Amino acid sequence: MLSQKVLLWSLIFLVCHFAISCKANQQSEYLYRFIRSKMFQQNPSHVESYSSTIVDEHVSKVHVNVEQHLRSRKSDKVKSLPGQPKGVNFDQYAGYITVDAKARRKLFYYFVESPSNSSTKPLVLWLNGGPGCSSFGYGAMQELGPFRVNSDGTTLSFIKDAWNVVANVIFLESPVGVGFSYSKKPLNQTNIGDKNTARDSYIFLLNWLERFPQYKIRDFFITGESYAGHYVPQLAHLILSNNKKRKNHKMINLKGIAVGNGWIDDNFCTKGMYDYFWMHALNSDQTHKGIEKHCDFRKFNVTNECVGYENIADDELGNIDVYNIYAPVCNSSATKYGASYSVSNVDPCAEDYTTTYLNLPEVQKALHVKRTKWSPCSDLSWTDSPASILPTINGLISSGISIWMYSGDIDGRVPIISTKYSINSLKLHVRTAWRPWYTGKEVGGYVIGYKGLTLITVRGAGHMVPTDQPYRALTVISSFLLGQLPPQLKS
Amino acid sequence: MLSQKVLLWSLIFLVCHFAISCKANQQSEYLYRFIRSKMFQQNPSHVESYSSTIVDEHVSKVHVNVEQHLRSRKSDKVKSLPGQPKGVNFDQYAGYITVDAKARRKLFYYFVESPSNSSTKPLVLWLNGGPGCSSFGYGAMQELGPFRVNSDGTTLSFIKDAWNVVANVIFLESPVGVGFSYSKKPLNQTNIGDKNTARDSYIFLLNWLERFPQYKIRDFFITGESYAGHYVPQLAHLILSNNKKRKNHKMINLKGIAVGNGWIDDNFCTKGMYDYFWMHALNSDQTHKGIEKHCDFRKFNVTNECVGYENIADDELGNIDVYNIYAPVCNSSATKYGASYSVSNVDPCAEDYTTTYLNLPEVQKALHVKRTKWSPCSDLSWTDSPASILPTINGLISSGISIWMYSGDIDGRVPIISTKYSINSLKLHVRTAWRPWYTGKEVGGYVIGYKGLTLITVRGAGHMVPTDQPYRALTVISSFLLGQLPPQLKS
Repeated sequence: MLSQKVLLWSLIFLVCHFAISCKANQQSEYLYRFIRSKMFQQNPSHVESYSSTIVDEHVSKVHVNVEQHLRSRKSDKVKSLPGQPKGVNFDQYAGYITVDAKARRKLFYYFVESPSNSSTKPLVLWLNGGPGCSSFGYGAMQELGPFRVNSDGTTLSFIKDAWNVVANVIFLESPVGVGFSYSKKPLNQTNIGDKNTARDSYIFLLNWLERFPQYKIRDFFITGESYAGHYVPQLAHLILSNNKKRKNHKMINLKGIAVGNGWIDDNFCTKGMYDYFWMHALNSDQTHKGIEKHCDFRKFNVTNECVGYENIADDELGNIDVYNIYAPVCNSSATKYGASYSVSNVDPCAEDYTTTYLNLPEVQKALHVKRTKWSPCSDLSWTDSPASILPTINGLISSGISIWMYSGDIDGRVPIISTKYSINSLKLHVRTAWRPWYTGKEVGGYVIGYKGLTLITVRGAGHMVPTDQPYRALTVISSFLLGQLPPQLKS
Repeated sequence: MLSQKVLLWSLIFLVCHFAISCKANQQSEYLYRFIRSKMFQQNPSHVESYSSTIVDEHVSKVHVNVEQHLRSRKSDKVKSLPGQPKGVNFDQYAGYITVDAKARRKLFYYFVESPSNSSTKPLVLWLNGGPGCSSFGYGAMQELGPFRVNSDGTTLSFIKDAWNVVANVIFLESPVGVGFSYSKKPLNQTNIGDKNTARDSYIFLLNWLERFPQYKIRDFFITGESYAGHYVPQLAHLILSNNKKRKNHKMINLKGIAVGNGWIDDNFCTKGMYDYFWMHALNSDQTHKGIEKHCDFRKFNVTNECVGYENIADDELGNIDVYNIYAPVCNSSATKYGASYSVSNVDPCAEDYTTTYLNLPEVQKALHVKRTKWSPCSDLSWTDSPASILPTINGLISSGISIWMYSGDIDGRVPIISTKYSINSLKLHVRTAWRPWYTGKEVGGYVIGYKGLTLITVRGAGHMVPTDQPYRALTVISSFLLGQLPPQLKS
């Protein structure tokens, strides 16, 4: 039983924490809040795989005829995004796919094709985490999409190293309630959690492929970061089990998954987070010893002593962006101390510009969405979240698809050591020894190849890897799509 | 006894290592080469304090009369450095102080006064390490001095956060053989090591204060980095013991020392270095385990297995600047991949520009040095280097002077964890708990106050802290000189 005192303590902590928090973007804080709330749940979720029995009926409900989809595709075409720079040489689409006709659950997507040879390039789905955060507002507009919102909040700039250089990329707002995705049925009456997110995403994909049938047999990859460490393997599992059931009619040509700084195991990720704080001299020796002594994350065992030390650990960090421990924080006289102290030249206030832009009526019109107040993240009451995704990942390894875990090495929230603890627990055989990988003569990070899984670090990147290190991230994803390890040093 | 095989292995390693090495600047590599060479010494040096018995006679030999010194000061005045920007509003001096008249050992110094209120500001001595590297070429021209050499190698720019904002700073090239310092007696017949470096530096100071008598009673502080983790405490010890012997005639008004990323203990620093590599995901788990199993750094015990794992550890790092693990490397198409991937906007090729500049005949003339080929570092045959400076530091603690250890937290060569291991071994009482310190709303790093010693980290700085984080470094040194901990968050 959980003591009243602990619950109170935790609530006080959360309130205090958010009061001072312009320390990181919303996506980041949603994950942290979610993790903390899981710690205080009386009935922690169990490790389990994803049911695929319900899928068929759902799919049949929403399948529409070919002509209708072709019409939809035409209307989904984005002619131009307000304030976009001149010289856009690729096609953009945005719109809704209905995943439950009765409840009118509609998922919003933004799709950018590659400027050259898009018809032979692979199809990549990108998912942001949270849970509750927008893949469009983060993934597309702040990470790997072709545009960034300028500080005026109304115009866009090109990004050189966007992922549509090497792929056709779908950004899916998932589940309903996130970003532009919505439901007719009130959210508090909708069961939202890992299972339904996977199911709705799967139904989305089946229907999206009807709307864009030229991608039906294309090589398909699922990518994502943070809490998408749940979404990506779960969706992959669902696709593969359904593919199996329909042997003669391979629905989705899934080739691999890539997860960035993924939350894949509550125990290893939480332990790794506190270890990282200490290893990077953000926490004192005394506090780290206290956590080691009093916290048992295997049980997510909440004791007063553990919570006390966790709170001290958090206080000791001070006002840093834990998701990129060397970045400046937004609104901290960034012009004076900011940019030049950052690992990269990333603007820590980009989320503000994006929020302004996506709430412009003309932008929402151009994206074919119903007029709404767009937020980077949404509060969702989450029903199911397994303590570990490692059994699911183990299942995927045996399926033979390509599995990459990449990690920006200056993210303190879902740090590289957490990913290493998780992978090490699988006791996989090392196939390619740890080595640096390169972009030109610069070390982009490190790579180690296991039987069935590849671990890659991205040097000098935080939680949002493509934001912090666009060129290195593009190098990683290009190698992933080609099915080869990232480059060695050329002599 | 050391096996032939190990020696051979080590030589091969060193050669290979230097062949690929444009990976960091010379100062950095000199330290590493020195540490490696110590590992293979048959008679490791013992821990000991510094003899002060020889000083009196030396001092008397070089003392010259007041008029002579005043003439020298006048001739040491630097009218203008070639290519210096307009608006220089402080005095600069450069010249030699003879520390041994017979052997004609002359130490070069560069002295910059503060633009405002220099007559009340403290006097600070800065020492670079190596051993064998130039405090002028690094400290003054690349770290905390008021100028930086532009990429043309002929002109200078101002640095906003130079330390002469808060102090009058002497940069001393020490020992003889380093930078512009020289000896008539050939270096290979000169006993060069820690003891003589401390003694010559002390004699330098006594004489320098005769040349600049207005600084005689001024508050005096010794600062330095890297192998100056030896120099600084040793020189402080020598000053204090000689002050004690001359109770009625306090020679030097030493108030405190500040050591940055200092090599202060062979065991803790070496162990910390490999731990840091692993903790920052630069080395594999396998290699780290091998080092933990086979290397006993307390004994500097060289076994084939240990050397083997150390070499693997080094290979695994790849071509990174270990002294700032997130910085770009020089000559790696820096214009393409460089600057934007750096923690700060530091040019990794600054050492090249400085070397070009300091070898210009007009620059050497302006600095009043005899025409010479200037190098950032010099090969010196080192005679004595105690395995630990911790006993010396312990002695200084009991003397009551202020002792600060600061550490740029992204230096992998003398990392923060090494400094923490060293300090922890002293088992000092914690007086002020670990907390973040701030520049405005940005966390500049962390601080913990012990009885008699203060440890400070500088966030996002490598080995050369003032180079990577000039504003944060200036905040640290300002607090140090004021005798107060760096600022907390202002609400």
